[in-house]
Amino acid sequence: MRALAFDGQAARVVDRVEPLAGEGWAVVSVHAAGVCRTDLELVRGYMDFRGVLGHEFIGEVAEGPAEWRGRRVVGEINFGCGRCVACASGMRRHCPNRRVLGILGADGAFAERVALPVANLHAVPDSVGDEEAVFAEPLAAAFEILEQVAVAPEASVVVLGDGKLGLLVTQVLARTGARVLAVGRHEEKLALLRARGIEAVHLDAWKRERVDIVVEATGTATGFALAMAATRPRGTLVLKSTVAAGVQLNLAPLVIDEITVVGSRCGLFPPALAALAAGSVDVRSLISAELPLARGVEALEKAREPGVMKVLLRP
Amino acid sequence: MRALAFDGQAARVVDRVEPLAGEGWAVVSVHAAGVCRTDLELVRGYMDFRGVLGHEFIGEVAEGPAEWRGRRVVGEINFGCGRCVACASGMRRHCPNRRVLGILGADGAFAERVALPVANLHAVPDSVGDEEAVFAEPLAAAFEILEQVAVAPEASVVVLGDGKLGLLVTQVLARTGARVLAVGRHEEKLALLRARGIEAVHLDAWKRERVDIVVEATGTATGFALAMAATRPRGTLVLKSTVAAGVQLNLAPLVIDEITVVGSRCGLFPPALAALAAGSVDVRSLISAELPLARGVEALEKAREPGVMKVLLRP
Repeated sequence: MRALAFDGQAARVVDRVEPLAGEGWAVVSVHAAGVCRTDLELVRGYMDFRGVLGHEFIGEVAEGPAEWRGRRVVGEINFGCGRCVACASGMRRHCPNRRVLGILGADGAFAERVALPVANLHAVPDSVGDEEAVFAEPLAAAFEILEQVAVAPEASVVVLGDGKLGLLVTQVLARTGARVLAVGRHEEKLALLRARGIEAVHLDAWKRERVDIVVEATGTATGFALAMAATRPRGTLVLKSTVAAGVQLNLAPLVIDEITVVGSRCGLFPPALAALAAGSVDVRSLISAELPLARGVEALEKAREPGVMKVLLRP
Repeated sequence: MRALAFDGQAARVVDRVEPLAGEGWAVVSVHAAGVCRTDLELVRGYMDFRGVLGHEFIGEVAEGPAEWRGRRVVGEINFGCGRCVACASGMRRHCPNRRVLGILGADGAFAERVALPVANLHAVPDSVGDEEAVFAEPLAAAFEILEQVAVAPEASVVVLGDGKLGLLVTQVLARTGARVLAVGRHEEKLALLRARGIEAVHLDAWKRERVDIVVEATGTATGFALAMAATRPRGTLVLKSTVAAGVQLNLAPLVIDEITVVGSRCGLFPPALAALAAGSVDVRSLISAELPLARGVEALEKAREPGVMKVLLRP
């Protein structure tokens, strides 16, 4: 089958052996897959990954248990070992022996077919189109914040960053009724939020008042310091970007202002699928381009261009 | 009166005008004051402070409201403005206009007499000696952790650092019934904890198992990374040191393991005074030396020596 794989040197469209559905696993025929910033980091050496890229997808079960065959599905990306304390306590996403789809020890979804544990599958409601369902994974990552932090309706929230994740996070947090302000550098992206009645302001025009909860979703080295300064004493800073590696940081403000920093990664899919079914989060506007899998290398390049949001691959 | 002050160049014992007890204020005759690591940072330029040093003290009210005169007192160090949102919501310690005793805009307690708002005073029970009461401030900072983080009896806790604050934090957290392990570099300090039935291990012998809650109290640049590595996925890292300034840090583990970092500073005094009255925290063993205020400069030098814990000054 055709797949977009990283061999340690470059991402290439290659011919790959078909995945197999072992006991408890399913093979999914991919309808569409989304390029994530993490994919772009992986081809720069992050996680030292080798194999088929891609962890955001929607497809149809081709092989596996009879009750799953033919169903439209999305899939959670962490494959727990099922035998450790983390897995036993429902924290499969934090299993120390986990493999992660297209990120760590498991071939991903930039392929005609992909294999996942059946336990990771979620059926997609008929009302949710492929172009929406493919956002289940990043949208779940946005909902993860609500699993970790109590966002009261009277809370003031700032989301830093108007990239794909920032736009999803802003929409998810705005649903809570809290006062949410998005801060970004791209007027055309901020306009998408304003069109949905959400306050959004350019970084240069931002008044920088300190608020209860700040979400760092800029993916930039300077984002963390900016987020610290925007969090009120005893407030909460949600850290969504992993790219602030090796940055020179002064953590004294965290102590002096007794700020709580919450690292936040992958989320559970059900709330994301429910929001897509309810149409309460706009994801279609985030699609910048769709390319066939055969042009996968070009798709990665496209995804790197300034202003480009989600790029979809179609096998 | 005699005082130990920092003039921007050096700490010197000087003759200083007597403080005045304005409306709502009291003047306290200092019995004893403790040298804190923060004092040592202040004379290196931290906070750009000028004035009388010292924020840990025990004394007797010399001037002020009749009901306070003659009483033995300790004092909370943050002077809120009393008019802002933070002060109105009981967060005087986070008042943006605050002055801080011997740290920010207010002369401190390395002096014969010191002035504080009456609202900051706490009467000391007769059963608590001066050598114990002088620890109220750092002990309150240790108790602050319990105000911020739920420490369940089944929790596993590691306290990194066997300095004064680390030893106080360890004892306070051990009182909760949680399994607390102190990790340090000084066998003689760890022995103090072991004598009280608390598990304590040398850094080199530490197995580095990841636990629910880690308290960073090393005050070293490398402490934060060590603490991150010791915190289990979804665990809590309490940051007590402000000295990790300008350190090259990779925060990706916070996100990947969804760790919560809680910055923790000053605490309220009542639980600290209650613990001292109950004798449930040993502070006397932490006193390394006592010097007269006239030898204040020498006292600061002494406090910098390796292995030296609390140095007290007596006016």
